[in-house]
Amino acid sequence: MADLRLSELHGSLTDRALTSMNFLNEVSHHYPDAISLAAGRPTEEFFDLEDVHRYLDLFAEHLRTQGYDEPAVRRTILQYGRTKGIIHDLVARNLAVDENIHVDPEAIVVTVGCQEAMVLTLRALRADPNDVLLAISPTYVGLTGAARLVDFPILPVTEDDDLAAVVKAARADGLRPRACYVMPDFANPSGLSLDVESRRRLLEVAAAEDLLLLEDNPYGLFGAERRPTLKALDTERRVVYLGSFAKTGLPGARIGYVVADQTVEGGLFADELSKLKSMLTVNTSPVAQAVVGGKLLANDYSLIAANHREREVYAANLRAITDGLAARFPGGEISWTVPSGGFFVVVTVPFPVDDVLLEKSAHEYGVLWTPMSHFYAGDTPIHALRLSCSAVTTAQIDAALNRLAALIADQLP
Amino acid sequence: MADLRLSELHGSLTDRALTSMNFLNEVSHHYPDAISLAAGRPTEEFFDLEDVHRYLDLFAEHLRTQGYDEPAVRRTILQYGRTKGIIHDLVARNLAVDENIHVDPEAIVVTVGCQEAMVLTLRALRADPNDVLLAISPTYVGLTGAARLVDFPILPVTEDDDLAAVVKAARADGLRPRACYVMPDFANPSGLSLDVESRRRLLEVAAAEDLLLLEDNPYGLFGAERRPTLKALDTERRVVYLGSFAKTGLPGARIGYVVADQTVEGGLFADELSKLKSMLTVNTSPVAQAVVGGKLLANDYSLIAANHREREVYAANLRAITDGLAARFPGGEISWTVPSGGFFVVVTVPFPVDDVLLEKSAHEYGVLWTPMSHFYAGDTPIHALRLSCSAVTTAQIDAALNRLAALIADQLP
Repeated sequence: MADLRLSELHGSLTDRALTSMNFLNEVSHHYPDAISLAAGRPTEEFFDLEDVHRYLDLFAEHLRTQGYDEPAVRRTILQYGRTKGIIHDLVARNLAVDENIHVDPEAIVVTVGCQEAMVLTLRALRADPNDVLLAISPTYVGLTGAARLVDFPILPVTEDDDLAAVVKAARADGLRPRACYVMPDFANPSGLSLDVESRRRLLEVAAAEDLLLLEDNPYGLFGAERRPTLKALDTERRVVYLGSFAKTGLPGARIGYVVADQTVEGGLFADELSKLKSMLTVNTSPVAQAVVGGKLLANDYSLIAANHREREVYAANLRAITDGLAARFPGGEISWTVPSGGFFVVVTVPFPVDDVLLEKSAHEYGVLWTPMSHFYAGDTPIHALRLSCSAVTTAQIDAALNRLAALIADQLP
Repeated sequence: MADLRLSELHGSLTDRALTSMNFLNEVSHHYPDAISLAAGRPTEEFFDLEDVHRYLDLFAEHLRTQGYDEPAVRRTILQYGRTKGIIHDLVARNLAVDENIHVDPEAIVVTVGCQEAMVLTLRALRADPNDVLLAISPTYVGLTGAARLVDFPILPVTEDDDLAAVVKAARADGLRPRACYVMPDFANPSGLSLDVESRRRLLEVAAAEDLLLLEDNPYGLFGAERRPTLKALDTERRVVYLGSFAKTGLPGARIGYVVADQTVEGGLFADELSKLKSMLTVNTSPVAQAVVGGKLLANDYSLIAANHREREVYAANLRAITDGLAARFPGGEISWTVPSGGFFVVVTVPFPVDDVLLEKSAHEYGVLWTPMSHFYAGDTPIHALRLSCSAVTTAQIDAALNRLAALIADQLP
C-alpha cells in the first residue's frame, strides 16, 4: 500500500499553528452541546438564501448597465475570469466610502477569503532563507499558518517591544525583516485597537526602517468609534491592506482581497500577486464574487449600511460579556479587556490556561473558549483565555458565563 | 516610497512557468481580434444564468430531503463551512457513476479548482530540499507553476524514458522522488492518452518503486472511447486523483477536488491536505459548491449526461481541426496528432516554434495558438504548436486554419 508517514510530509503539518487549529475544531465537534464562546464566525441571524439570488441578479444587471451584452454578462459570471477579480472596482468604491481609502482598482486582487490574500503576500515576500516576518504578538493563528505554508519564520513583536529595535537586532543577526503584520482594529485575539497616535508612529517606524506593514482589518467595521486605518494614513504606499468580506459580506462566498499599490519595477505589486494567484487558485469564483458584488451594489457600496443589524447584535453581545464578567467577578482577581468593538474579550486569570483546561471546560462545564496560548510562540504558560461574542445570543452568553465562572471558581485555590 | 524590486521577491515570479503563463495571457489581450486556437476554456454556448439559480435551489432542496431544517440549510450554504467541503458525498457518487471510482467521501477534499488541489498535494509532499517531483513531459504549465510556488523541483520524464530507471537514477543522485504527475486522458498539452496496458504498467512501476501517482483528469469525459482511469485500476491506494469541474461543471464556480485515500498514521492523507487547506483558503465557497452540487443532482450525478451537448461540440471541433489540417497539408511535411477526444491537437512543423513566431502570427496573420516550448523544461527548440478546439466555432476553425496555413507556408524555405 502507498501509505505515508507524517515525518515524510511538509513540516507545517506537525507545526503548532496547524495542529492547534485542528485541536480547536475537534474540541468543538466533540462537544456540540457546549456553548461556544470560542467560535469567531459571524451571526447567522440575518442569513437569507433569497439574498444570494437577489445579489446575483443585481450584479448581472450592473454589468448590463455598464454596457455588457447578454453573452458578456454570462461569460463574466460563468466562465474562467480575470485573475485579479471582477469586482475590484466595486471593492475600491467600498474602501472609499467606508474607509476613506482611495486606491486604483488595478491595485486590488480579489482573493479566496483574506487567507489567500495573506498566503499570496507572504509567498511573494519570502524569497530568501534569511527572510523573517515580524508580527504583533499575540498573533492571529491564520497568519502564523500562512507563514508556515511558505516556510516564512515569524519574529513576534510584543506590545512592549520597540519595533525599530527589533528590526535592527534582526538585521544585526543577518536576518532580513520583510514586513510587519498588524491588526490595528479590534485585533484577533486581543480585541484591542491602536490609538491614532500609535498608528502614525508605526507608519513612521516603517518608513525609517524601510519595512512594509501588512494591515489586516476584518473587524474594523464593528465598533462605535471608528479610527483611520493605517492604509488611510499611508502616504508612502507602505501598507499592504488585507481585506475580508467574511464577516461583513457573506462568509459562504469566501471573498477577500489585498490592496497592493506598491510598485515593482514599473508595475504594481498587485500584478506580481496576481501571477502567484494564477498558480494557486487561477481566479476567485466569479459566481461568488458576483454575490458579494451584488451586496455592495444593494447597499450603495457601504458595508456599514449593510451591517447595521449585525453591528447592533455584536455591540449588545460584547456588552453582555463585559457586563456579565463584571457581575460575576467583582473581586479584582480576574480581569478582562473592555474593547469598544469587534468580537473578542480577553480574560486574564491567576492560573495557566491550556488545552487540558479547555477539554475539562467543554466536558465538565459545557462551555468553550480559546486558550490564549494558541496565539503565542514558545511554551511560556499563558494565564488568559479569549471569549468571542459573535455567534451566540445574549441568553447563551449569560449561561456560558455562569459555566465559565464555575470553572474558574474550581480552579482558584 | 515602499516600493519593491523583483529580485527581492520569491523566485517563482521570475520563473519561466509563471512568466510564460503571463506572456500567453498578454498576447491574447493585445490581439483581441485574432482567432484563438490557444484558449483552453470550455465552450460558452450553453451558459445560462438561470442554471445558477436552479442549481442553488436544487442543492438547498437536497439538504432539506437529508433532514436539514431551514437554519441548517442557510448555515450550510452561507456560513463558513467544513474544510474538506460540503459536496464530497455528491462528488463520490459522481466518481462512482462516471468513472467507476469507488472511494470513501471522507477521502475527498473539495478545492478551489484543481489548481488548489495540486498546490495542496505538492505542498504536503515537498518536505525536504532533496525531494523531487516527476512529471510526464510535455507537462501542463499549471502543475509546473504549483511546484514552483512550493519550491518543488520537477524532473521531466519523456515518453521514451523508463520511469523506473529515472527513479533509480534520481535516488542514486541523493534525490527523493515523491510522486509522478500524469494526465492519462487527452493530456494537456499533448492531447494523447495512455492505452490500458500502459496504465497497468505505470501502476506496477509505481508499486515496485514505492511512488505515488498524481492523476489529473480534466478531459477524460470528452472522448468517444473511455478508458479506465489509473484510480479506477488502483488497488493499492497508489493514486492521488486530481479532479476538476471547470470543464464539466461550471468554470465560474471554481470547484475541483482531490481524492487522497492514502493513510497517514491511521488517518487519511485527505485530512492532512485539509489541515493545509485551512491555512491556504480556509474552505471552498459553499455557495460555489452548492451550484456544482445542484448540477450533479440535476443530472443524477452524471457529468457525461450533463455534457452531452458539449461533448458533441468538442468532437465536431476536434474533427474540424484534424480534417482541416489534412485538407491543407497533404504533403507530409507537416504532421499532427489525431486524438479521439479532449481539447488539443499538436502540430509538428519543420522549424522551431517560439514566442516571437506567436507574436508574428497574432499580429500579421490574426491567429493564436500555443508554442509547445512552454510545456518543456530547458531551452531545446521545439518544432511544434498546440491547437485547442474548445472555445471556437467550426467556422472560426476554418478561418483560423487558413491563417495558420499562410503563416506556416511563409515560414517554409
